Amino acid sequence: MLNLPSKSLEQAVAQLSKLPGIGNKSALRLALHILKEDELYAKDLATSIAALRLNVKYCKKCHNISDEELCGICKNPVRDINTLCVVENMSDVLAIESTGAYKGIYHVLNGVISPLQGITPMDLTIEHLIDRVHSEDINEVIFALNASLDGDTTAFFIRQQLNDIPEMKVTNIARGIPVGGALEYADELTLGRSISERTNLSQ
Amino acid sequence: MLNLPSKSLEQAVAQLSKLPGIGNKSALRLALHILKEDELYAKDLATSIAALRLNVKYCKKCHNISDEELCGICKNPVRDINTLCVVENMSDVLAIESTGAYKGIYHVLNGVISPLQGITPMDLTIEHLIDRVHSEDINEVIFALNASLDGDTTAFFIRQQLNDIPEMKVTNIARGIPVGGALEYADELTLGRSISERTNLSQ
Repeated sequence: MLNLPSKSLEQAVAQLSKLPGIGNKSALRLALHILKEDELYAKDLATSIAALRLNVKYCKKCHNISDEELCGICKNPVRDINTLCVVENMSDVLAIESTGAYKGIYHVLNGVISPLQGITPMDLTIEHLIDRVHSEDINEVIFALNASLDGDTTAFFIRQQLNDIPEMKVTNIARGIPVGGALEYADELTLGRSISERTNLSQ
Repeated sequence: MLNLPSKSLEQAVAQLSKLPGIGNKSALRLALHILKEDELYAKDLATSIAALRLNVKYCKKCHNISDEELCGICKNPVRDINTLCVVENMSDVLAIESTGAYKGIYHVLNGVISPLQGITPMDLTIEHLIDRVHSEDINEVIFALNASLDGDTTAFFIRQQLNDIPEMKVTNIARGIPVGGALEYADELTLGRSISERTNLSQ
């Protein structure tokens, strides 16, 4: 720890350095910046952080972040409510929304099953997802989880509980070479999947 | 700007992205982290930021950050009060203190003269520095400013106002090749100064 000349500075640095990707030195830089700025800025920043944790709600349908009981996507009458996309967390919803390629609704799991990190299906919103698929008028469930062992395990675990709805379409987002990515730098797993899951060239 | 599903989240991201080195995406990552953590963490972080700006004082002698009227260095009876090191800001004091090589006292300018950024001598603590040098029992003034045009200008400006004390020793920290630095990667200016300011090899 740095030997700081002020208790208040020490405390601010200690709290700021708990943020992801912020070490002691960066935290000190941020704290000194806050000190240099207008007094109003420190107040606004502090207020917005406190308000964030207090005011943010989660959509009771899809578990996305929302200011109200239902999020903007679940409330939107134009969205295709027959297609449900399962994602790990809220930033994945933002990423998919920014593509403009998806018009269906979402379900945020709030993580993936990870025995190593002690995350079990009970810690996630899987039970609610299964309920939704059974009670809502859903024709297709798309898994858009990260391509990791934990992501695949989670998709497999949920897939098994959807087996009792035979007409349900269950899909996975395509894995392959990124658009603009060079073949020679792709890892073997991605390149292998891009070959085994090749698509027809339209004429 | 990202299209966020919550006003509180939007505000927190907007405030966080004003911090140096934090863009919109990093700010969102920080905000989501704050949301995932304990409610107590958001509260502690907010409180420490607000307290930082409200509680931190500046040493009335050297302008270093302090919780009291005089900072720990100015109050320390063991420090050599005849040697004064002039630095740009408080983080430079921390950097020099961490070397353990300096036992004198400091004067924090709170910046350097920069005509381009509109910073004049009146915006800095230069007048107080000149007063201190005249009224306190100081034998040597060491300039430890960054090796930039602005830093050199500031040192030169202050140097001229110390000319009326002929017995005053005024020095500059050594410029040269960093310890462990490779000669071939040093810039010409640094390498040039390291040759012209070469020191005797002890036998």
